Amino acid sequence: MDLFEKIAANRGPLGTHAHYAHGYFAFPKLEGEIKPRMIFRGKEVLTWSLNNYLGLANHPEVRRADAEAAAEFGMALPMGARMMSGNSNLHEQLESELAEFVMKPDCMLLNFGYQGVVSIIDAMVNRHDVIVYDAESHACIIDGVRLHAGKRFVYVHNDMAGLEKQLERAQRIIDETGGGILVITEGVFGMSGNQGDLRGVLKLKEKFQFRLFVDDAHGFGTQGATGAGTGEEQGVQDGIDLYFSTFAKSMASIGAFVAGPENVIEYLRYNMRSQIFAKSLPMPLVVGALKRLELLRTQPELKENLWVIVRALQSGLREKGFNIGTTTSCVTPVLLSGQLTDAAQITFDLRENHGIFCSIVVYPVVPKDVIMLRLIPTAVHTLDDVVLTIKAFEAVQDKLSKGLYSKAEVPAGLAD
Amino acid sequence: MDLFEKIAANRGPLGTHAHYAHGYFAFPKLEGEIKPRMIFRGKEVLTWSLNNYLGLANHPEVRRADAEAAAEFGMALPMGARMMSGNSNLHEQLESELAEFVMKPDCMLLNFGYQGVVSIIDAMVNRHDVIVYDAESHACIIDGVRLHAGKRFVYVHNDMAGLEKQLERAQRIIDETGGGILVITEGVFGMSGNQGDLRGVLKLKEKFQFRLFVDDAHGFGTQGATGAGTGEEQGVQDGIDLYFSTFAKSMASIGAFVAGPENVIEYLRYNMRSQIFAKSLPMPLVVGALKRLELLRTQPELKENLWVIVRALQSGLREKGFNIGTTTSCVTPVLLSGQLTDAAQITFDLRENHGIFCSIVVYPVVPKDVIMLRLIPTAVHTLDDVVLTIKAFEAVQDKLSKGLYSKAEVPAGLAD
Repeated sequence: MDLFEKIAANRGPLGTHAHYAHGYFAFPKLEGEIKPRMIFRGKEVLTWSLNNYLGLANHPEVRRADAEAAAEFGMALPMGARMMSGNSNLHEQLESELAEFVMKPDCMLLNFGYQGVVSIIDAMVNRHDVIVYDAESHACIIDGVRLHAGKRFVYVHNDMAGLEKQLERAQRIIDETGGGILVITEGVFGMSGNQGDLRGVLKLKEKFQFRLFVDDAHGFGTQGATGAGTGEEQGVQDGIDLYFSTFAKSMASIGAFVAGPENVIEYLRYNMRSQIFAKSLPMPLVVGALKRLELLRTQPELKENLWVIVRALQSGLREKGFNIGTTTSCVTPVLLSGQLTDAAQITFDLRENHGIFCSIVVYPVVPKDVIMLRLIPTAVHTLDDVVLTIKAFEAVQDKLSKGLYSKAEVPAGLAD
Repeated sequence: MDLFEKIAANRGPLGTHAHYAHGYFAFPKLEGEIKPRMIFRGKEVLTWSLNNYLGLANHPEVRRADAEAAAEFGMALPMGARMMSGNSNLHEQLESELAEFVMKPDCMLLNFGYQGVVSIIDAMVNRHDVIVYDAESHACIIDGVRLHAGKRFVYVHNDMAGLEKQLERAQRIIDETGGGILVITEGVFGMSGNQGDLRGVLKLKEKFQFRLFVDDAHGFGTQGATGAGTGEEQGVQDGIDLYFSTFAKSMASIGAFVAGPENVIEYLRYNMRSQIFAKSLPMPLVVGALKRLELLRTQPELKENLWVIVRALQSGLREKGFNIGTTTSCVTPVLLSGQLTDAAQITFDLRENHGIFCSIVVYPVVPKDVIMLRLIPTAVHTLDDVVLTIKAFEAVQDKLSKGLYSKAEVPAGLAD
């Protein structure tokens, strides 16, 4: 069969909705500066869909640092892969400051988080090794695991008995192959918002020999007394063998890093395919990350503000009877049961009639009969924003329980 | 075995050299603005190792556009994946201009080239399909192929009889599975510098039904009458079903794009894992790419200058008896036979005594007994630079043929 014909016949789980979703439910445009109030289709909306946890995206010092670095260096510098011609003192300074911040001996900058995770996993294991990973791991972890030529076992999200069983299976394999075990989980799971049970995982080190790789994309900057992440929050930062975070959330940028023992980080520097064979992180992003990290360290009030908003939003929603699942982080899912058409109606109602913009998460990210409206509180939201939002959600819930959404048609022509 | 102990014992093909290579042969720092003359370890060197083909990295209009865009938007905007909250009019404008420039109906921006290619391949095929690819394909293509759950066949670089044989095997497979065939090659191979035989590949469409995906990282902006790339150069741009280029070479930035039929590009927008699940390209990089593309279109003298330098360098080296392999592009490899210790000595001699900085490429990128010094000419080099460089290479060749390098020790303590 012709590949293009195959694609024409099967658009993929999200692609089937493109004809009505595009430009509204999918690929929407939020315009203006990154703040709680932005412009969507010409109207101001209260936005709860950006991972700008600490409000750094539009922080005046960040904006100034970004502008000055781009003026000084341009976006091209340095050129080439880090190993070939893309290294600089500033890259090394950022690595050193990040390592110190997350309390690890060494750190390696990554040109992008997604491919960074894929290549970390790829570099750490060979076909003799076994990967054991949480079932709700992010797509980049899954892609890394998919590259693995050896055995991989998945455990039900945060199910420590399940993990133990899979470690037993893994142990039997490596007894044969002479390989090792890599356990992979996340600090904070971006959809449910609950923390990976790092303490539970690490307790199993008493019975099994394995190394633990943690993707803390949503925990870095938001969790722990100093913001060093979910390991710090749970008092087990030392037990994490390889600690990863992207800059795409709290740091409001792109790029990422991985931290761990010097010897292991040096190995990764020389063996990660997506880093050896692709361009280094541009200098303005490095300088911008240095500034963001400085603010993480020196302005603890950013994280405090964030948590004031998080607590108000989550307790407010719970008080009104909303199911916000099992979140133990800033990520605030509101779980409604219904079909995709309801979800579309609700999102439309929220945006058009209540002026509230939040992301709608549908299958395959959540099960088919679940509607997840995902709220990301930030340090720059206000308590008034929270009150307004909960009121809007109550109105929506009322309408949903009366079956009013399902009677309506899916709004047509939104993409026009 | 413990994974960290395994790593301690086996540092990988490049990692074994880290103890003496780091900071000099690997991870060197080129300081100052991106131009032919930069600073390496405090001394000015003539640099031939940056893929800044058209000299755009430090072009005053590019520098101004980069600075102004960062000042206007900051580096954080937009946040989130393109599909969720990371879309903008400027992203769409760039897609439309790129599509027009490479003469394809539609185009999709990618947040990074490496993971872009990986996910394009991943999205285009399922286990029923067969991938047939050139053996010298870039690491990102290989990683994409590694994700493939179905059959994959590799053909000897540019060997059209070999490709035909593999297509026959692929055809037998898909006759069983009902799948399709994806052929993958490059426009310009970054190490050898020779062009993928796109005409040869496409001739085989007379016998076989397949789709052709071309990674034209080194061809975009440097090949073809308008700079639209290797397809244009060979008069077969129409035959390329999916055309890819990174912004990391001629465009002197990061990010990438893929262009093809509207229907297929829409499918990719909704099905590429590294794009659905990772952050959108930051606005200053989008605005910067628009400016770079404008210069590609409006300043053909940049490409003309580039080729003046390329022709002078390549014919000059050939006249002096150097083996520059099979290059038919700007990439200029100088192939010497020798061991890694010779390579280190030569590189050191060039940098320290001749003030010439070029990249040294060693195993596993080239075979173990080959030393490749790789020169990347740019539009901003001068003919004097070429003369000086060829003289230096003659001196090096003279020393090498007299066996003087192998008698010397590898320079010690360079990383200190």
